Amino acid sequence: MEKVAILGAGSWGTALAMVLSDNGHDVRLWTHNQEHAGKINQTHKNEAYLPGITIPDKITAYFDLQQAVEGVTAIVIVVPTKAIRDVCIKLNKVLKHKVTIIHGTKGIEPNTLKRVSEMIEEELSAELYEDVVILSGPSHAEEVSQKHPTTVTASSKNLKEAEKTQDLFINEHFRVYTSPDMVGVELGGALKNIIALGAGISDGLGYGDNAKAALITRGLAEIARLGTSMGANPLTFIGLAGVGDLIVTCTSVHSRNWKAGNLLGKGNNLDNVLAEMGMVVEGVRTTKAANQFANKQNIDMPITSGIYRILFEDADPKDVVDQLMTRMRRHEMEDLSAVLSNRYSN
Amino acid sequence: MEKVAILGAGSWGTALAMVLSDNGHDVRLWTHNQEHAGKINQTHKNEAYLPGITIPDKITAYFDLQQAVEGVTAIVIVVPTKAIRDVCIKLNKVLKHKVTIIHGTKGIEPNTLKRVSEMIEEELSAELYEDVVILSGPSHAEEVSQKHPTTVTASSKNLKEAEKTQDLFINEHFRVYTSPDMVGVELGGALKNIIALGAGISDGLGYGDNAKAALITRGLAEIARLGTSMGANPLTFIGLAGVGDLIVTCTSVHSRNWKAGNLLGKGNNLDNVLAEMGMVVEGVRTTKAANQFANKQNIDMPITSGIYRILFEDADPKDVVDQLMTRMRRHEMEDLSAVLSNRYSN
Repeated sequence: MEKVAILGAGSWGTALAMVLSDNGHDVRLWTHNQEHAGKINQTHKNEAYLPGITIPDKITAYFDLQQAVEGVTAIVIVVPTKAIRDVCIKLNKVLKHKVTIIHGTKGIEPNTLKRVSEMIEEELSAELYEDVVILSGPSHAEEVSQKHPTTVTASSKNLKEAEKTQDLFINEHFRVYTSPDMVGVELGGALKNIIALGAGISDGLGYGDNAKAALITRGLAEIARLGTSMGANPLTFIGLAGVGDLIVTCTSVHSRNWKAGNLLGKGNNLDNVLAEMGMVVEGVRTTKAANQFANKQNIDMPITSGIYRILFEDADPKDVVDQLMTRMRRHEMEDLSAVLSNRYSN
Repeated sequence: MEKVAILGAGSWGTALAMVLSDNGHDVRLWTHNQEHAGKINQTHKNEAYLPGITIPDKITAYFDLQQAVEGVTAIVIVVPTKAIRDVCIKLNKVLKHKVTIIHGTKGIEPNTLKRVSEMIEEELSAELYEDVVILSGPSHAEEVSQKHPTTVTASSKNLKEAEKTQDLFINEHFRVYTSPDMVGVELGGALKNIIALGAGISDGLGYGDNAKAALITRGLAEIARLGTSMGANPLTFIGLAGVGDLIVTCTSVHSRNWKAGNLLGKGNNLDNVLAEMGMVVEGVRTTKAANQFANKQNIDMPITSGIYRILFEDADPKDVVDQLMTRMRRHEMEDLSAVLSNRYSN
């Protein structure tokens, strides 16, 4: 039995807390919202993020970060990408001992173009942890909280820390595999949200499953193209954290990025969509970051650039998707071989 | 304008006939069932296979093969795999001139373990055609008949024939790309039906989207492993005829292999399922063929072997899927790197 703190009481943080609690660990679920912490402790529910799910009594929610992390051996950071730096700065002040640092946040920071693990490395005092571990894969929180079979990847350059994470989380329903490819695992999880926005837009336009499958397929090639240019192992993109997470996010009713895209495809503008969602839609900021990176590195990313224009430049969703469906080269291999060889030029 | 015969008036044959007719070609739709041909010509509908769809008047259905192929420049074969040899033998008797031969059938022949294009090459007289072209990709017939955007791959070792096929079919809604990798394109289309049975079984068991995504991801690796061992280019499996077709077949309500799997997962046996479907479920025979190939070549294909045991050895679907979810190695890369390096051993 270990003491573990989960930072972030959204749907994914709560579901991960439930997995750890099922495994017999002492779990503290921290949120920056005092009212939210109180409600969880009082009702043993998290209605805003996991409606209908009962949280085990032994999971305690905390508003005080110092109390939450006292004596823990591992901290799982699951706050939105834009809150990552702030949470690390807070941890520096209250954490007095070395822990295993795991994160389950899927995003890239605009402007700096840093992955979440890099943001943590930049902010968190080096004496507080060995190496960051990323937990990623096809894992809707709703299903994890209901003990549906789920597989994820724990990735770190430090195999011991990855295996510690595996040992903490693994059980009969929640299967954890390790991978040394942090860049690929992290980018697979972040970039798939862009394609999920696109899949939602295509569905919102009423274009059907054939069109969506084409978009996902080309999206996978685009993710692999960007990812390998950032140093990822291309094989990661055909694994759980790559195509696995891409499929589940693009085709499942639970995906909030898909839902946001769907609303965009039906003609709503970004402000209205975000207001209606009421939760962070990571894909929006990730699109901005990936589009910046593609421009900077001169990488051809037609889907990302199309979604960017819909989100931030009021481009018409139908025009963008129609263009994406017709712009591929005459011979498919010209597009595909660029993925692994990484010698793509327009 | 060209004269083209489509052999096989199922849902896919009919949808392809509609694409060609939209493109201004003179299309003859042949079926071995005289009553079926009569009904199509009388009602301009194909209620058994494409309910609710109106077929353009200018498409004529034929029962007489000689009449159907008279003067055509291309023949598109879309009969079930088990009827391929018979149709070629019939063609040898009635076809008097050289044509472009295209096929859209997704299967592998049990026992001989031949791909459909190889079956055609073995049976069809060499003077009747140059090289076979395969048309494959994420393309539910229902959506194609409704002009939803669709992308497919035309593959042949003969680029001229592939490009002729592209020219025949391409239009604003139906995008056709070429690929030289016949083995990969053909196997991607055939083998994905096995994984679709598995996805249906998982859904029938109520296991959710996380489990299905894991199964599809591992299915893709399994397809790529078998495919590369048969000589395919591994890149094809991350293209339209690979992961594209896999996604659409595993996640769409239109897929009959998914439907059959779903009924199996709900506890029905194979005979009842096939009786209820009333259409050919190619995945069943493909599972048999792929399982034979894997055993013969000593290739590790846990999903195919699991589905085989459910279909033909009365294995319990829940036991098989639970085993598949837990049997992966501790480090994901051990599974994945085998895909491209093709040095997998158990």
